[in-house]
Amino acid sequence: MNAEPLFQAEISLEIPFHDLDPAGYVWHGHYAKYLELARCELLKQFNYNYDAMTQSGYMWPVVDLQLRFVRPLRFGDRVKVRASLVEWEYRLRIEYLISSAATGERLTKASTVQVAVSAASGEMCLRSPDILFERLGVPA
Amino acid sequence: MNAEPLFQAEISLEIPFHDLDPAGYVWHGHYAKYLELARCELLKQFNYNYDAMTQSGYMWPVVDLQLRFVRPLRFGDRVKVRASLVEWEYRLRIEYLISSAATGERLTKASTVQVAVSAASGEMCLRSPDILFERLGVPA
Amino acid sequence: MNAEPLFQAEISLEIPFHDLDPAGYVWHGHYAKYLELARCELLKQFNYNYDAMTQSGYMWPVVDLQLRFVRPLRFGDRVKVRASLVEWEYRLRIEYLISSAATGERLTKASTVQVAVSAASGEMCLRSPDILFERLGVPA
Amino acid sequence: MNAEPLFQAEISLEIPFHDLDPAGYVWHGHYAKYLELARCELLKQFNYNYDAMTQSGYMWPVVDLQLRFVRPLRFGDRVKVRASLVEWEYRLRIEYLISSAATGERLTKASTVQVAVSAASGEMCLRSPDILFERLGVPA
Repeated sequence: MNAEPLFQAEISLEIPFHDLDPAGYVWHGHYAKYLELARCELLKQFNYNYDAMTQSGYMWPVVDLQLRFVRPLRFGDRVKVRASLVEWEYRLRIEYLISSAATGERLTKASTVQVAVSAASGEMCLRSPDILFERLGVPA
Repeated sequence: MNAEPLFQAEISLEIPFHDLDPAGYVWHGHYAKYLELARCELLKQFNYNYDAMTQSGYMWPVVDLQLRFVRPLRFGDRVKVRASLVEWEYRLRIEYLISSAATGERLTKASTVQVAVSAASGEMCLRSPDILFERLGVPA
Repeated sequence: MNAEPLFQAEISLEIPFHDLDPAGYVWHGHYAKYLELARCELLKQFNYNYDAMTQSGYMWPVVDLQLRFVRPLRFGDRVKVRASLVEWEYRLRIEYLISSAATGERLTKASTVQVAVSAASGEMCLRSPDILFERLGVPA
Repeated sequence: MNAEPLFQAEISLEIPFHDLDPAGYVWHGHYAKYLELARCELLKQFNYNYDAMTQSGYMWPVVDLQLRFVRPLRFGDRVKVRASLVEWEYRLRIEYLISSAATGERLTKASTVQVAVSAASGEMCLRSPDILFERLGVPA
């Protein structure tokens, strides 16, 4: 793993009613959407969002998702979701922190791993393709 | 509109926890999924489910959705969803009835309208394409 | 129906990846979320959002939902969702317009109807309760 | 961790259209629903499904979710989801395996952790409450 995140992005969001469960908290499965919103913002930073991925001839499916729920989220809560790119050579590993916009309290920690799959062959790439390094601006 | 449904399908389902809102009822937006499950069962009956649509060179986007919620649905409720094909010449119009599996009580009424769009041209068809009539086994 | 909307609200949103279907368009069932975001903004304007509803002793379930899809929505599209309160005496009827933020083109039209249900008795109110008129600032 | 699962449950499901992403695969966030369907079936086996949890005075929020996606899921795929209860003394730890109904191929591995929270005090229980052991039929 690389020591420092190469790129970082942060989004703000307000918890919507339709994500709540009968206890009045966000149902745990909905968090994957929040992570994705921050991930897309991160990918935009190096011009490699989903549209660009497709155009580059690669899909980047999520192959691993981990979520640790520290504090529940309620209707109307304002939170920040920060996404940090921490690995890229062999796979894209992104770490996430959801925190209270008001107090900064840490509410959720998460990570995703994505690997490159060639759209043409359907084969998984053992190493990230050159296009990623170009976009990141780092040597391959 | 045609008088009698040409095809009809019915599915059974049990209301899952993740569709519930803070009041303990199914959030209204989730019903579109229930309709789709019944619609896919209906489309299977004449071999024209989504995969077959794509292969035939047409997309059939939903252009109209109407839902009337008569009684709420709760966790674990067992319901039947009946889908009836009532129009097909110019558009696919399907009517839905969600009812209690236990009592038969009518819980939700709905309808969807889909129109054919040529995948090649992106143009909406003013009339359903021949492939639909073939599959339905009715004269075009 | 009342001639002019009593209150109106508008939100902006960017279409997220997780709402897309295999054709690359927003799956029709997801629109109910976009309407709700605008509806909540509208309800905030007269201090009667979902939390306030609950505190007032009433639930306001959606009993009718109608959606007409004029143009599809794609990944990253920026849209505006306008919600207009057009009926309130016997039920809350809200009309929605989703339009392109860039061009103003009308993409989706929709409406919802909500009725008051007493949380205590579970009974549907034949007329909107006094609290609604207070919040709206109109004579009951 | 306990060596053998105390309870095990398996459900069958067919991948619905509305869970697909633009690549034609199930979007990763939707898997949480599949796990929940199997988990609810597991909880039913010892009469401690979500309704029973609430009645017992405890909530059991998911505090950890891990998913490893081995093979993608496509429209109409028939899969089995097996849920195994592997820890219960201090927390409910459930492991999941999603496999192809046709070939038995392993498609997804996952786990969830839930802890008991007293509905009255809002406090997290450091140890699973007696009611759980009663339902499981094991000494506390």
